[in-house]
Amino acid sequence: MNAQLPLAYPIRPEAAQAPTSGIVDAMSYGRGRPGLIPLWVGEGHRPTPAFIGDALRASLAAGETFYTWQRGIPELRAALAAYDERLNGRRSDPERFYVTMGGMHAMQTAIRLVAGPGDEVIVPTPAWPNFIGALTVAGATPVAVPMGHSERGWALDLDRVAAAIGPRTRALVINTPANPTGWTASRDELAAILDLARRHGLWIVADEIYGRFVHDPALAVGGRAASFKDVMAPEDRVLFVQTFSKNWAMTGWRVGWLEAPPALGQAIENLLQYSSSGTATFVQRAAVTALEDGESFVAEQIADAREGRRIVHEGLAGIEGVTLAPPSGAFYAFFKVRGAHDSYALARRLIDEANVGLAPGEAFGPGGEGGLRLCYARRAEDVTEAVRRLAPVLGSLAG
Amino acid sequence: MNAQLPLAYPIRPEAAQAPTSGIVDAMSYGRGRPGLIPLWVGEGHRPTPAFIGDALRASLAAGETFYTWQRGIPELRAALAAYDERLNGRRSDPERFYVTMGGMHAMQTAIRLVAGPGDEVIVPTPAWPNFIGALTVAGATPVAVPMGHSERGWALDLDRVAAAIGPRTRALVINTPANPTGWTASRDELAAILDLARRHGLWIVADEIYGRFVHDPALAVGGRAASFKDVMAPEDRVLFVQTFSKNWAMTGWRVGWLEAPPALGQAIENLLQYSSSGTATFVQRAAVTALEDGESFVAEQIADAREGRRIVHEGLAGIEGVTLAPPSGAFYAFFKVRGAHDSYALARRLIDEANVGLAPGEAFGPGGEGGLRLCYARRAEDVTEAVRRLAPVLGSLAG
Repeated sequence: MNAQLPLAYPIRPEAAQAPTSGIVDAMSYGRGRPGLIPLWVGEGHRPTPAFIGDALRASLAAGETFYTWQRGIPELRAALAAYDERLNGRRSDPERFYVTMGGMHAMQTAIRLVAGPGDEVIVPTPAWPNFIGALTVAGATPVAVPMGHSERGWALDLDRVAAAIGPRTRALVINTPANPTGWTASRDELAAILDLARRHGLWIVADEIYGRFVHDPALAVGGRAASFKDVMAPEDRVLFVQTFSKNWAMTGWRVGWLEAPPALGQAIENLLQYSSSGTATFVQRAAVTALEDGESFVAEQIADAREGRRIVHEGLAGIEGVTLAPPSGAFYAFFKVRGAHDSYALARRLIDEANVGLAPGEAFGPGGEGGLRLCYARRAEDVTEAVRRLAPVLGSLAG
Repeated sequence: MNAQLPLAYPIRPEAAQAPTSGIVDAMSYGRGRPGLIPLWVGEGHRPTPAFIGDALRASLAAGETFYTWQRGIPELRAALAAYDERLNGRRSDPERFYVTMGGMHAMQTAIRLVAGPGDEVIVPTPAWPNFIGALTVAGATPVAVPMGHSERGWALDLDRVAAAIGPRTRALVINTPANPTGWTASRDELAAILDLARRHGLWIVADEIYGRFVHDPALAVGGRAASFKDVMAPEDRVLFVQTFSKNWAMTGWRVGWLEAPPALGQAIENLLQYSSSGTATFVQRAAVTALEDGESFVAEQIADAREGRRIVHEGLAGIEGVTLAPPSGAFYAFFKVRGAHDSYALARRLIDEANVGLAPGEAFGPGGEGGLRLCYARRAEDVTEAVRRLAPVLGSLAG
């Protein structure tokens, strides 16, 4: 979907052509309906835990309301390195970490570093629509490579990725565990992707924000999904975009981080200076607390997601005409309904007939046609009730 | 000053060429010196008043930690329109207002709307370095037009601006009252600038963030500086970038707004979606409170600035060899020292010899050579002491 161009005003084509979010399309249709169960966005039901908010309050009370370090306060960069060491079992370095205003800002900054007009960037799809959006706004050309299928569900076809690489290709966007499909790369797959990128001199923009949410034990590495960190050298051309949103229920806070080779430090600082000019110190203090004291809360979040996944699968996977591979990771179910082609119409129909809000698959690009994304990181009762309402409607649609 | 290019990594030229902030250069040199009086950044000494922080705390306690409206919460957009009506005495419309993560983010968004590779944008200089920085990062070409001088001090030479307009010119960046010079446009000057822009089909990016800080009564319109709002029609191609930073001492909060014709709404929403993905609701609640209950605090801020301005002028304007026109608005003194050409060296010398931190004039582009910017929106005792220390050093330098 493209925005209506404001013809009375001459604006840049990148801005005029930025795609609107197809998820918002469904939300606008269903917003405000009494009793609607909203499973359309990637957000849990829990507000941010109080101990994280307390750290913000303490910082505010101490008068930390002034300009701050563009790269992030030293305490948060150190805490990110320590978290990285705990999670990934290898030495880290605070100089690799740059605090951003959320994962989206990290993504935007990564893209500005590596791609612009005349450049192509490969994005396996279905994918989070903001990858395509941010590339478009930057004037780069996103090249969608639809994912294939294996007996495990969705699968990245590396030959197809390789075939899409041309002289203008600058980067691969690799999201694992993936939104919306739940696809989760194995260590071997990541090694193969890295090898491909190295051979072609490409950057990898790695979105591993759902790394703690891995549901297939065969794909788990020490309780998390495989990461490029398991196969790369520190100096490899890998940019990690990360967020506090999912693990710590901080979607509305807008705080995340970019991890990059320290040699890029000055360029990244400049991009931050000319976009956000830093992130509020009181928000960063809360982020430090999330990293240091948030593990038991993260465990609850993961347990929520796992229970939601179970409910969705028990309730929907058996419906004749509904195709739903069990997602290996993240917290979305992405399913298709036999005979359905217009996922926007389908999402609206489910709002009307089941009073459940899902995201239309076409919003996620090629491969998403006729599909729907359901976020199951919600209260178990709500997921149960949503499935109870969806099942008969989906059954009749596919029947 | 250009960043060192990280040669081992292929990054975009716009990112590699983004200028580093020359202000940071001085700050890095002086940071941590005992007793240093820092007048280098545009920031007052007061932390955010408690009643604004209280509004954040209430929102946080209410669990407002989820994703929110990309354009800003309706309550803040309505409060911005009401503030606009009070300040400017004409009807406003909440649909013209888009909440951003600070004035810089508003500026970045405005630039992305109107300029990119192949486009030129005119910036009168000396100017806030981030105009040039944001244009460079966007791939646009900034065209600096040095300001001239009149009997009132700095002056915009409209003929010179007109002469700089070419077939690739897309916009004029007009900052009044200006950082760093204090230049403040009269209503007639703004009408002439608007007329020029209309004739050439150009956008105006209007930075009027210091509009409440007008010190020359002849230039004040109802207690504020003249604004494009006094001369334009709502549908004119004017984009206002604004911030809560200065009036309400919220520099570290990173919240501001963009005002634009409502026809651009979807394009702006998309740019926000793919950069910040919105601003924290709890920060927006605090911003509503600042607008609604902050007038007496703003009056204190203005009084602080006016007292600082008086102290600086009494202390420095009489020094032989120091050129300091009384700034009409904003809260900076920009002065030159006879015989000084390297403002970076000058700023370092004043750190070493006076233990006062000023911003080097070259950081502000053509016209700033050999100059220094002093932010006087500080505690009167500190400004007094800074002037006491600076006067003899400047006197000997210029002597």
